[in-house]
Amino acid sequence: MTRIATPEGSLFGLANLPYGVFSTPGTAPRVGVRVGEHVVDLTLVDDVFAAPSLNPFMAQGHARWVQVREQIRTLVSGDVDDAAVHPAESVTMHLPFEVADYVDFYASEHHASNLGRLFRPDSAPLMPNWKHLPVGYHGRAGTVVASGTDIVRPSGQRKAPSNGSPTFGASRRLDIEAEVGFVVGTGSPIGTPVGADDFDQHVFGVVLVNDWSARDIQAWEYVPLGPFLGKSFATSISPWVVPLLALESARVATPPQDPEPLPYLREKNPWGLDLELTISWNGQIVSRPPYREMYWSPAQMLAHLTVNGASSRTGDLYASGTVSGPAKDQRGAFIELTWGGKEPVEVNGEPRTFLEDGDEVSITATAPGPSGARIGFGEVTGRVLPAR
Amino acid sequence: MTRIATPEGSLFGLANLPYGVFSTPGTAPRVGVRVGEHVVDLTLVDDVFAAPSLNPFMAQGHARWVQVREQIRTLVSGDVDDAAVHPAESVTMHLPFEVADYVDFYASEHHASNLGRLFRPDSAPLMPNWKHLPVGYHGRAGTVVASGTDIVRPSGQRKAPSNGSPTFGASRRLDIEAEVGFVVGTGSPIGTPVGADDFDQHVFGVVLVNDWSARDIQAWEYVPLGPFLGKSFATSISPWVVPLLALESARVATPPQDPEPLPYLREKNPWGLDLELTISWNGQIVSRPPYREMYWSPAQMLAHLTVNGASSRTGDLYASGTVSGPAKDQRGAFIELTWGGKEPVEVNGEPRTFLEDGDEVSITATAPGPSGARIGFGEVTGRVLPAR
Repeated sequence: MTRIATPEGSLFGLANLPYGVFSTPGTAPRVGVRVGEHVVDLTLVDDVFAAPSLNPFMAQGHARWVQVREQIRTLVSGDVDDAAVHPAESVTMHLPFEVADYVDFYASEHHASNLGRLFRPDSAPLMPNWKHLPVGYHGRAGTVVASGTDIVRPSGQRKAPSNGSPTFGASRRLDIEAEVGFVVGTGSPIGTPVGADDFDQHVFGVVLVNDWSARDIQAWEYVPLGPFLGKSFATSISPWVVPLLALESARVATPPQDPEPLPYLREKNPWGLDLELTISWNGQIVSRPPYREMYWSPAQMLAHLTVNGASSRTGDLYASGTVSGPAKDQRGAFIELTWGGKEPVEVNGEPRTFLEDGDEVSITATAPGPSGARIGFGEVTGRVLPAR
Repeated sequence: MTRIATPEGSLFGLANLPYGVFSTPGTAPRVGVRVGEHVVDLTLVDDVFAAPSLNPFMAQGHARWVQVREQIRTLVSGDVDDAAVHPAESVTMHLPFEVADYVDFYASEHHASNLGRLFRPDSAPLMPNWKHLPVGYHGRAGTVVASGTDIVRPSGQRKAPSNGSPTFGASRRLDIEAEVGFVVGTGSPIGTPVGADDFDQHVFGVVLVNDWSARDIQAWEYVPLGPFLGKSFATSISPWVVPLLALESARVATPPQDPEPLPYLREKNPWGLDLELTISWNGQIVSRPPYREMYWSPAQMLAHLTVNGASSRTGDLYASGTVSGPAKDQRGAFIELTWGGKEPVEVNGEPRTFLEDGDEVSITATAPGPSGARIGFGEVTGRVLPAR
């Protein structure tokens, strides 16, 4: 039997207990919980965790999520069967859930304003609809990949403003978007919107998202139906799903909303999350985006997504859009951080703008836990491989 | 034993043999083939058809699709076990496959030009990118529903140009889009585009699609990230998947493309499909959109969708976008047919523009088969229920 150490200051202490899907050499992927520097095999707790995804457990609903969290806390506080405990660095992590539909929002006012200025320099930075509804669109669920998956530089059509016609080739403006993703555990039937105050019954947990973006492909294709191939080649997510239940102490008020949103977007107690993200570019931290600055809240995004009667399903993932704060070193995409490539940032002593082959980007986050503890998110990382 | 009649002129003769998922009272959904006015239970042929979706069979690949089609032709040409033969009107049809990702294109030049004139009257009708690439976007896979599913009128934000702020309420401009959908049987791995000449190895079959659209919600939300809630409440598909193998005689040349597309969009023998659609509004045919007029071909759409390295999966559905021909009575959406509601059409003696509660819309199609036969598509139908 093993007593798992969770030293003071651990980001994966008993207040966190995030879920992921792991395997060890010669075994099938199954669900585990991260505790300190270890992963505990949750098939000890319930057969539902023998699945290679969190979906069957998430589908069991909120009451069960609360109950199992208590069981896990009791289990890992005592002596645990050696066979179920694995050093975190010895396991392979997989995609933690099967993605049903993937939606990407655009909820940061700072990001939307910056992108507006860069993509449409002759118009107002925010579109007239932006403060009335959380703008969003559907992305490609099939290309959501696990952290650590290499990202092959995409090819596609790009057209420079000075050229009459597009050319085909590898993206020259490959970028990241640091985002926070919400995972639906319990869906809602078609025709039945999820109210802004019913969020907790539906959303199981939170992951970090890197929504890789080819800005040159996107700029040429996105009118009038939105981003498509500029985004659909890969979206990376962190391996650990932090339960909403672990983020009670991270709830903060959202920034003031003016104009007041329509009633279906009003919460009794509007809340955002005080996640502090960091973006590392080849090991050097280049930005610290603050999630608490996001204009639209997690509950508003889900209420909007379903207000037309669209159903939601176990495994739906919706991401916040790029998290950018007001300061330059709080911007969550390199197109903003380097102002369209015109203001390089220094990375390990070199001036850099967009991603080069071989670059590695990692996004992490922490959030306040109870009694001064901090809750860690698993990092989402990816390395750029040359175009094929 | 039963010998199934396929009278001359039947749209479901031996040249067609479309696959669907059906059930009879007290039995589980399983795969059947439509022959004349009957449905034959395909568990007679292979256990793979005991699944409630076509996905496991489609995943077996092109060689197997060819082989099984021959087995089915032999089976239904002879005497078939009575227990496996059901009158078509006695069975319940279900969604024929599990939708992985859903993409919607915009491949009709007539439709894109008409929508451009209606949505952006002060600009050129076609965007500069339109003739260089098949414009498309991701839709919501979770709200693709079987033909016959009632469509609840969606609610959402709408803003009239004369109003400063949006209001919330039931859509007043509920519309249809008559489209043709392509079902991916064999996927492609991430990083490996599907060439324009490799279409046949990947696409299993064809369905009809009604991409219900709330034009007022769409007009307010769609800038800059594209359609979202104006489309995501429901997309209906026909119950029978017509195999590509049944559509050899329906192949026709595509309209000339000028400028010549980039090499990845060139086919050795460019082909479209000579499908003749009909749209019935409360039982009256109001339009006959010709699929042969579509600018971008089925193979070009798949080549584009994957050229950035995006993977495709068994069950991916990509639709053509609204099929509209050059003539007014060939338009595939009511917003075009009634020119934004300004030119009502007469339906059963009444002037009509957008959909009213209780309206029913059915889309059907036929295509040339071998030796003068015609291939029928199952109809996709839906009735509008009042907003909740």
